[in-house]
Formats: sequence, structure tokens, C-alpha cells
Amino acid sequence: MTEPYGRVALIGLGLIASSMYWALKRAGFEGEVTGFARSSETRDIAREIGLCDRVCDTLTDAVTDADLVVLCVPVGVMGAVAAEMADALKPGATVTDVGSVKSEVIAAVAPHLPEGVHFVPGHPLAGTEHSGPRSGFAELFDNRWTLLVPVEGTDPDAIARLRSFWESLGANVEETGPDHHDLVLAVTSHAPHLIAYTMVGVADDLRRVTDGEVIKYSAAGFRDFTRIAASDPTMWRDVFLSNKEATLEILGRFTEELFALQRAIRQGDGDHLHAYFTRTRAIRRGIIEAGQDTDAPNFGRGAKK
Amino acid sequence: MTEPYGRVALIGLGLIASSMYWALKRAGFEGEVTGFARSSETRDIAREIGLCDRVCDTLTDAVTDADLVVLCVPVGVMGAVAAEMADALKPGATVTDVGSVKSEVIAAVAPHLPEGVHFVPGHPLAGTEHSGPRSGFAELFDNRWTLLVPVEGTDPDAIARLRSFWESLGANVEETGPDHHDLVLAVTSHAPHLIAYTMVGVADDLRRVTDGEVIKYSAAGFRDFTRIAASDPTMWRDVFLSNKEATLEILGRFTEELFALQRAIRQGDGDHLHAYFTRTRAIRRGIIEAGQDTDAPNFGRGAKK
Repeated sequence: MTEPYGRVALIGLGLIASSMYWALKRAGFEGEVTGFARSSETRDIAREIGLCDRVCDTLTDAVTDADLVVLCVPVGVMGAVAAEMADALKPGATVTDVGSVKSEVIAAVAPHLPEGVHFVPGHPLAGTEHSGPRSGFAELFDNRWTLLVPVEGTDPDAIARLRSFWESLGANVEETGPDHHDLVLAVTSHAPHLIAYTMVGVADDLRRVTDGEVIKYSAAGFRDFTRIAASDPTMWRDVFLSNKEATLEILGRFTEELFALQRAIRQGDGDHLHAYFTRTRAIRRGIIEAGQDTDAPNFGRGAKK
Repeated sequence: MTEPYGRVALIGLGLIASSMYWALKRAGFEGEVTGFARSSETRDIAREIGLCDRVCDTLTDAVTDADLVVLCVPVGVMGAVAAEMADALKPGATVTDVGSVKSEVIAAVAPHLPEGVHFVPGHPLAGTEHSGPRSGFAELFDNRWTLLVPVEGTDPDAIARLRSFWESLGANVEETGPDHHDLVLAVTSHAPHLIAYTMVGVADDLRRVTDGEVIKYSAAGFRDFTRIAASDPTMWRDVFLSNKEATLEILGRFTEELFALQRAIRQGDGDHLHAYFTRTRAIRRGIIEAGQDTDAPNFGRGAKK
């Protein structure tokens, strides 16, 4: 690869950072990658599995002399981490993040960064239900989208270098604004996660149906919800609290539609239901044609363990 | 296999019937399997792909001399089909069905069946988002549960034979009552499907976010909902209309929980959210341990097309 950066610091060593590291290795990245995690247990695991060229015990050590610093921590602590590392940043360095929310992260991080450091917020739209330093893999970003959300007046060259960096990890890259990002993500990610968490919580809480029954009979549809409802609780708590308005707006729309469908069920309006269920098939086809999901039945998961 | 039946008639040649046929072949079933579908196009496809030993042009032909008749039609037409075939049923034959709802199906079918015919309602909890005669495959029922819902006074031998039949197709078999079945399925299948349909419909209908964006960025969570929201519209319309009370009860519980979580978001109650999201992880683990889903990230679907 052409190297947009000589030294990269990954801050927070969970699913995204560890996948970035393995994707960098796969791309033949020749610079140095430092890593830092707040938890000493996470740092120990990283050292044990060879995650990062050098795992640092302090944030300052990790970011010193880095050309690119990637904040891979929950969005609720981005601001505090930015404040803590600000003095150690190299002039001319680029700081980016991978947070699922952009407006609040920009407001929390930008004020702490010194003049001469480029801040280019980002968000790779990729993940799994697993978390932690052992969960990463090099293919995570392949054919997925990374959105860059640069603030006005950002050096175009800093944006171009970050774009080329993400492309080298396998991602497609696009730019958008923070408010639009947060609304699009509320639809494609935040509301679906909250709804999945809710449905799984309801099933867990019913007196008349046991957890054992829910588990045994989950292949009838329910299990599809449990994957995203197994995602990292801290990350998701922060996402909902940081993207409050857009998430609540979409949930409001969702509730309105759900009430309309409940009413159609109660009134026996089969035509309304049939028309609605026919319309929703088209989006699935679009997703498959765009290479964003598999057409194999049941996501291609094996029928047997 | 030990043959519980000499001749089996599959009525309605969609995903379930076609999977049953291929599973019977895999099991080395030595009897004859007849098939019937209302649509001549479906019958033509069945003949073309070798689905069923004999595809019949009339319902009467298909069920004549059958030892087991399996109704694989949408639950809304089960009663009419039962009425139409009643006179052609062989004394001592067993009639079963694969409908996703049991109380209404039993009420619709049972009155039409003549004395001397055993009616043992059933429901294989297995499926995919695909439908039609080409969508079946032999492994569909492997390690999945089939619920038998026999009415009081049914000949135990007729139940035992049907159990052994389903086991030969790869399924685990359990018995339950119709009301409990319908409640459990409302939780594990019907409510999740309606919620998925709703979320996909909302995404499709937003003015400020394009379908193109929803599709491109669907890997952030949304795409998990689109699979079950691509299921057969006629089948699902009938399910909701036939399992009205239980589905509306679960959706009521769901809405209540969703409102509580929306309020926690609005009020910034991170502890409530975190606790809720932690609890829902356990069910996912249970499902994986029970062999009802894969632990591979993203259901194991390939990262690349």
C-alpha cells in the first residue's frame, strides 16, 4: 500500500481497533501501530495475541509521534480521552474516531484538539455482535462503508489521506454531514438495535412462556433479533444517549406504523397487511443486489451445529 | 427408515412441502408421495424439478388412498381445503398440517374431517425467507422443533406415527396445547415478524433518508430485520389474522417496554439502559448453546459477495 501515515495509534482495543490492526497487516502496512486500552487486562490480552506492534501503558505514550490517532472508545468517553491526550499530539497529526454518533462526538472532541492537528471524524459501518480485543478480524471492513464527517475548513489533504487509509482496509468511503449521518444511522442501526433489545427483553420477561421455550423455538424468527441484542451494552448505552433526538424521532415513526398495523390486525384488514408485507420485500432485494447481505437462506448459517 | 405411512400426500407445494419431500428422499422413504398445488404454474414447476413422486391435478386425486395428508397451505385456507378433500380421505388416514397458528386452524379443519380419520395438528418451527416450490431443501428441519398439538381423545398410535415421521425428517418433536402454542409462537415468531416488517416499512418511507442510503448502510444492523421481512406476504397476513389475540398481547407488552426504554433515553438514564442491554445477552448465549443458532460473527455470512 502507499502509506498515508508512518505511525498509527489505536486508542481502545475492542472489535473495531483489533480489526483495523489485522486489516493493516493484511494490507502490508509498513509503519508502526501503537495501541492503548484503559484496562490492563485488555492490554495483556493484546500483548498475548500480538495485537499492535507496541501496546503502551499510557495514552500519552501511545499517541506520541503518531501521524494518525484513531479513537475507538465508547462515544461517551471520547471527549475525556481527547482532553487527556491533547498535549501529547504531534503537530500535523490527524485525529479521527470510529464512533457511531457524530454530532455529539464532534462537539465533545473538537474543542480539546490543539491548533495544527487535523480532526476528521469517521464511522466505519461494520461490526459484529462480539466485542473485545479477541473479536477482530481483517475482513471486517471489506465492501462495507466508512463515512467521513469532516468539519468545515478541514485540510482537504488530511481528508484524502484518511480516505485512502480506510480504502486500504477494504472499505468504501463516502463523506456526509453530522446531522444527516446521525439520522441515517438512527434508521439503519440505532432504532433497529433498540427494537431488537426490546423484543428480546420482552421475551425474557414473560411469565407464561419460559426462557427455555423461547430458546428452543427461536428459529421461528426471534433468533434474528438476538444477534444485535447481544452487542456491547456500554457502547450502545452511549449511542442512544448521544443520538437521542434522531433515535427518538425514528422510534416515534416506528411506533406510529406499528399501531397502524396492530389496528389492521384487530380489524381484520388483510389487504392492508398484504400490501405492507409485499412492499418490504423490495428493500431486501436491494440490499442483496448491493452486496450488503447474502441471499443464502437464513443468512447461510448452517442448519446443524 | 421404518415407514409409518405407505403413501403421503403433500397439499400446497411451497417451502415446507418441498423441504419435506427432499427430507423424505434423504431418509430413504419407500412409499409414494403425491403432491397437489392450486396453481398450475406451481404444479408445472414441481414436475419439472421432480418434486413429489406424482403431482396431481386435483386435490381429490392427491389425497385418495393417502395414509398421511399434510396440509401445507396458508392458514387462512386450511378450512376450505379440509372441506373440499373430506370425502376422498381414506378411513384410518391421518391428517396433519404445518400451520403457524393452531387454535384457529383446529377450529377450521376439525369439523370437516369424517369419523375414522385422525387429525393431529402440527407445526414445524423451521423456515427461511424464501418461498415457493423451488425453495425447499432436505436439511430444513434438522435439529429444529416440530410441535404436535393433538386434540383430546386422539388415538395415541396416530400421534406416535406422526412423531416418528417428523423425526425421520430430522426434527425434534414435542407436544403442547393449542393456546400455549399460539402464545409461544406469538413471542418467538409472530411479534418479531411484525416488528421487522414495521421497521423495514418505516425505513422505506422516510423522506429525509433515501432507500439507497438505507440499502448501502444496512450492515449497521438494519439488514438483520430485512430477512424475515422478506417472508411470504400471504402466509404472514393469515398468521396475524388467525393469531390476533396472542400477537396483539405480545405487541402490547413490546410497546410498553419500548416506551420505558425511550423514556430512559430521553431522561438520560444510562444505568437503566445498560442493565437492560446486559440482560438480553444471556438469551443469545442460551440459543447458541441449544444449537439453535451459530456463534460465528454476523451469523457466519460471508463478508464479501
